[in-house]
Amino acid sequence: MKFTLQSTDKNSKARAGELVTAHGTIQTPIFMPVGTAGSVKGVHQHELKQDIQAQIILGNTYHLYLRPGLDVIQAAGGLHKFNGWDKPILTDSGGYQVYSLTEVRKIKEEGVTFRSHIDGSKHLFTPENVMDTQRIIGADIIMAFDECTPYPCDYRYAKRSLDMTHRWLKRCCDRFDNTDPLYGYEQTLFPIVQGSVYRDLREKSAETIASFGRDGNAIGGLSVGEPAEEMYAMTEVVNAILPFDKPRYLMGVGTPINILENIALGIDMFDCVMPTRNARNGMLFTRNGIINIKNKKWEADFSPIDPDSDLHTDLFYSKAYLRHLIHSKELLGAQIATLHNLHFYLWLVQEARTKILEGTFYEWKNKMVKQLGERL
Amino acid sequence: MKFTLQSTDKNSKARAGELVTAHGTIQTPIFMPVGTAGSVKGVHQHELKQDIQAQIILGNTYHLYLRPGLDVIQAAGGLHKFNGWDKPILTDSGGYQVYSLTEVRKIKEEGVTFRSHIDGSKHLFTPENVMDTQRIIGADIIMAFDECTPYPCDYRYAKRSLDMTHRWLKRCCDRFDNTDPLYGYEQTLFPIVQGSVYRDLREKSAETIASFGRDGNAIGGLSVGEPAEEMYAMTEVVNAILPFDKPRYLMGVGTPINILENIALGIDMFDCVMPTRNARNGMLFTRNGIINIKNKKWEADFSPIDPDSDLHTDLFYSKAYLRHLIHSKELLGAQIATLHNLHFYLWLVQEARTKILEGTFYEWKNKMVKQLGERL
Repeated sequence: MKFTLQSTDKNSKARAGELVTAHGTIQTPIFMPVGTAGSVKGVHQHELKQDIQAQIILGNTYHLYLRPGLDVIQAAGGLHKFNGWDKPILTDSGGYQVYSLTEVRKIKEEGVTFRSHIDGSKHLFTPENVMDTQRIIGADIIMAFDECTPYPCDYRYAKRSLDMTHRWLKRCCDRFDNTDPLYGYEQTLFPIVQGSVYRDLREKSAETIASFGRDGNAIGGLSVGEPAEEMYAMTEVVNAILPFDKPRYLMGVGTPINILENIALGIDMFDCVMPTRNARNGMLFTRNGIINIKNKKWEADFSPIDPDSDLHTDLFYSKAYLRHLIHSKELLGAQIATLHNLHFYLWLVQEARTKILEGTFYEWKNKMVKQLGERL
Repeated sequence: MKFTLQSTDKNSKARAGELVTAHGTIQTPIFMPVGTAGSVKGVHQHELKQDIQAQIILGNTYHLYLRPGLDVIQAAGGLHKFNGWDKPILTDSGGYQVYSLTEVRKIKEEGVTFRSHIDGSKHLFTPENVMDTQRIIGADIIMAFDECTPYPCDYRYAKRSLDMTHRWLKRCCDRFDNTDPLYGYEQTLFPIVQGSVYRDLREKSAETIASFGRDGNAIGGLSVGEPAEEMYAMTEVVNAILPFDKPRYLMGVGTPINILENIALGIDMFDCVMPTRNARNGMLFTRNGIINIKNKKWEADFSPIDPDSDLHTDLFYSKAYLRHLIHSKELLGAQIATLHNLHFYLWLVQEARTKILEGTFYEWKNKMVKQLGERL
């Protein structure tokens, strides 16, 4: 994997770059749609590629491991072959899901035992077997197995957890470096900075993570409930330490404003379930802020969903029709709203990139943040 | 509306025709995908048009009346404008839904009172207001308000109900003929033959319906649980009486074999929720019979969903991936399976039409029925 910085903003830390993977080039900053179980909910692969112009999607190791299971994915020749998405894929390590989705779990030095949210069966994730699992899934970028601490999290717990996450990282790297890709193309491992909202822990973690000298680095444990200001403060602390010439991935963030502010702080990669999950409940992100399409005010508004957009579905369907579909729990409502939100997120980061390359990012970002004016 | 018979099969009663409506021409025999609430579940309008090549879709008066409601549809300028489907639409009269979906209902000479399945609110459907409602929805073909009797149904009930349905038809025609279309284009009213599985009642009903001299006629109250042989027998009895030169619509039918057998008996138009509803549970219709894609046997079958198809999604996605999506209740699973089934149904009637025009229908139909060999 090769990362090239093409331009850095003079009034902020924003950067535009290019990340070359075995399945194609990603232009950064980038947003990665979440395809939990190997499918971005409600969106066909050709829509992702042609309508949304997604450059990379996410898969969840936890979900894919449980269903369809590693035997099936390996027999298919990896996730790309299984779901037909031939562009880059990133898989998380399951670290987040075993804490957020499973009810019975036990965290030990060895790893985490948990029960499947599907059938209650018992499983163990360790740094080593999570690397093996991600070798089998075959994503271009794979993530270290970490503990993602909740918010709020007391200092002592955060510190102890962080130390374990660092020891786990060593085990992840050892396993990863001593195994080969299964399908003939290169995979890259990103370690994850943790440390909750404690500046000193974040600094220590960033230094540790940087010392591993991997090809890219991630920041985890944010967007878990903390105020946006704390999130930005942590990103700033960490980015001052993480290597400048390597891609930085802020996991699970966030709203359009969160994304713009973090781009300004030097983040290159984002993922979040918000545009897809909230779409299914009728929350639309637009360049003029957030719309709840279920509101009565859209009942007889027959204007296009988003006249500012160049997406066919945004121009073809009306707000009133989409409102009706969401109210009626019609599948098509989820499909249309998801396409809209993902298209908007991809437009936002593409626009940010253009402004960085033009040298006008900072001014544009401040204007957009005002215009978005979101209140969630 | 103008119907032209283009060809009739010499070894059966099958016919190929063309039905010209204000929103375009329908080539018969045709299958009409069901878009209950103004949307064919899981399918974009452009997919219906370009991928499935649907020529006409159905809407349900009962559902549309309750949600989004007539005010919204009228403000939009009718259902075509509301949902963006600019080809022909047919609406049923709500007669079936008020019996099958509502729990509290009372059938009187005046009409049917029922409670909404959405919010329990009380409503009255009469032959007159159902015509007015369908004027507002603005479908090209609208249906008379009838009572659809269940199966089994005792003779006395079926007879009494039929007489009322006939009196209601008179009221429907009076109201329809004394009102104008709201949106400037012609609408056509089809009456419905009832009579359960009683030959004499079906004959009597067909004669009554024919005497109204409308531009097309429908057969209702079949595919409600009776054996296929009874369904075919009733179609045969009725079609011997219904005018030869007008389109015949068999409501709510059915499996691929049901459709082929009824085409052979002289039916021109079909609708059924089976290809869409069953798709969502993983039942796929193929030219070699029915597949339950959830079966273990497809778990690692990475061959295309349907190699015989020319639909992109049938060739792009594998059986194993679709199985995974349906098991995981992913929206994309419903989308892919629905596209597949509708494409297959449309292919089937298009193929039947080609064979009728070629003069080889009867032989082909018998071969196909064997090949389909369906057991539901």
